[in-house]
Amino acid sequence: MSRFFSARHNKLVPYTPGEQPRQMKSYIKLNTNESPFPPSAKAQAYAAEAAKNMQLYCDPTAKKLTQAVADRLGVDFDEVLLTNGSDEILNFAFLAFCDETHPAVFANITYGFYPVFAALNSIPYEEIPLKSDFTIDVNDYIGIGKTIVIANPNAPTGIALPKAEIEKIIESNPDNVVIVDEAYVDFGGESCVDLIHKYDNLLVTQTFSKSRSMAGARLGFGVGCKALIADLNTIKYSTNPYNVNAMTQAAGLGCIEDDEYNMQNCKTIIENRDYTTKALRELGFTVLGSKTNFVLAKHPGIDGKTLYLKLKDAGILVRHFDKKEISDFNRITIGTKAQMESLISETKRILEGN
Amino acid sequence: MSRFFSARHNKLVPYTPGEQPRQMKSYIKLNTNESPFPPSAKAQAYAAEAAKNMQLYCDPTAKKLTQAVADRLGVDFDEVLLTNGSDEILNFAFLAFCDETHPAVFANITYGFYPVFAALNSIPYEEIPLKSDFTIDVNDYIGIGKTIVIANPNAPTGIALPKAEIEKIIESNPDNVVIVDEAYVDFGGESCVDLIHKYDNLLVTQTFSKSRSMAGARLGFGVGCKALIADLNTIKYSTNPYNVNAMTQAAGLGCIEDDEYNMQNCKTIIENRDYTTKALRELGFTVLGSKTNFVLAKHPGIDGKTLYLKLKDAGILVRHFDKKEISDFNRITIGTKAQMESLISETKRILEGN
Repeated sequence: MSRFFSARHNKLVPYTPGEQPRQMKSYIKLNTNESPFPPSAKAQAYAAEAAKNMQLYCDPTAKKLTQAVADRLGVDFDEVLLTNGSDEILNFAFLAFCDETHPAVFANITYGFYPVFAALNSIPYEEIPLKSDFTIDVNDYIGIGKTIVIANPNAPTGIALPKAEIEKIIESNPDNVVIVDEAYVDFGGESCVDLIHKYDNLLVTQTFSKSRSMAGARLGFGVGCKALIADLNTIKYSTNPYNVNAMTQAAGLGCIEDDEYNMQNCKTIIENRDYTTKALRELGFTVLGSKTNFVLAKHPGIDGKTLYLKLKDAGILVRHFDKKEISDFNRITIGTKAQMESLISETKRILEGN
Repeated sequence: MSRFFSARHNKLVPYTPGEQPRQMKSYIKLNTNESPFPPSAKAQAYAAEAAKNMQLYCDPTAKKLTQAVADRLGVDFDEVLLTNGSDEILNFAFLAFCDETHPAVFANITYGFYPVFAALNSIPYEEIPLKSDFTIDVNDYIGIGKTIVIANPNAPTGIALPKAEIEKIIESNPDNVVIVDEAYVDFGGESCVDLIHKYDNLLVTQTFSKSRSMAGARLGFGVGCKALIADLNTIKYSTNPYNVNAMTQAAGLGCIEDDEYNMQNCKTIIENRDYTTKALRELGFTVLGSKTNFVLAKHPGIDGKTLYLKLKDAGILVRHFDKKEISDFNRITIGTKAQMESLISETKRILEGN
């Protein structure tokens, strides 16, 4: 820390991204919830075409892609705001809808960035413990009167709440914004997007990173009523009006035009998830029921950190969290069938002590 | 505004980007200081190649490109931080180095985003008037004891301060950070980058948008001593660790490898600026002496807004600012020789009332 760093940030602990090993090629990378499938052909082609004209500023309103996303979701143009990954829309939402009198509330086990956004923006927050089975107790959030952030499906548990349960939370907190982070919704969750026309206090966020093979391109978005989106635009135009670059805007458009490809990939991931869950359980693992592109799993015979390290030695990266409630577990991204077979066979070998 | 928008932002007035007309092709676009030259061949090729693997997260440390930028500038890896355009590094710097006890100070006529960054982050700020010839009075900043932001060359005036003058400001404010925004430095200004090894309170920001034909790719960076860059990394990892996407990282690397091409383009722009300045003066314009890729010019026979509108009618976009101190002027981006010849002939026609 320099002697100039603002005292506002004395206690700020930044987010730690998953490992990005230098020799990427030599690992089976199941640690950051990336898609194992390349981006769609049109996404690649449109991005390459856009690169030829990158001397011009990108469209700050991202008109074409915003309209395409809106059409895909069945909402209006000004009910959508695109951002530089969904981390950016989440940060904008904390900035816009939380403050000293509107503290934030979220689960104690969820996306690790929420408390960082709150801390960065000097926003008080409360973490509500999950139940012992790692599910959210909806009653904890009924009429709580704070700005609520819920990842649905949740990460790193993978567990989804039914839409009807989320709706109870939204309905019972009419004077507070409810942010539903649907980063993983395309792998079997129920989206709340269509509820934005029923509730003016609902903001849904999604990303192209996982289900649309665009993690490296950085494209996320928020969906909400026009007034909420207008507020988020005020924040955007006060930080970075050209937040989504020209190549990513083009890639996103190609991606939507090729969305059958992406949805087919999601089906394959779900099949591979079912295979992995079953195979891990057969090896004696506890595997939480997942609606995402990862599973959270633990084994009575080996602690989480040891398994993570042994898998890494064997050339397979998974993600281990030091957080005490889940330190027995590892979060395993679902890749191709062949990758998951390697995971299972290496895990078996490790458990057998060879 | 929604009923949920935080009262913190009651008085926030966002930045207004330059016009991005829908029928881009039909205008000669001299309004947002873009390069008239396409990005380098390697920048285009590397971006297209990166698009093929965008299912993987980009490197959050942007190791290869950061090292290339550091090498190009003659500084170390951990003295550089890349961002999603230079707007992002500026916002990070306001967040990191300004607060209630470290207010910001900058010129009254300068990049219009500085007061927005301050307002967004609830940072008090002071605007110091330029002299009547639109130059900065260095004495105003000597020992001022606030976080100083200086665009050098300044925008939208185009006027540069000598490095020795900037150094006086840095030296006389040892307990405050001085941010020198060098967005336009490659068009004839003197960079302060090498002073970062002499002063621990200096942060220099630059961008690939103008001199390197990458406005649409969004790539900016900050250069400073390791402790300052570490603080800015704390902010980055608390907002958006993957802030520079994979295609832009790749394009930037290609761009640096092709930097002779970019520097040749800068020379051409300087020649075209000299041509434009001379031709406008021959038409009776007052043209401020510019070290950037634009000129600020006014004519005694026509007010700034009228000329802007008439040029727009004629298919040429320039930028007019309503701000009263410069409302007589227009800011004209320097494009190709042919574009500037069109500007001159259309301006002549307008002045002659045809």
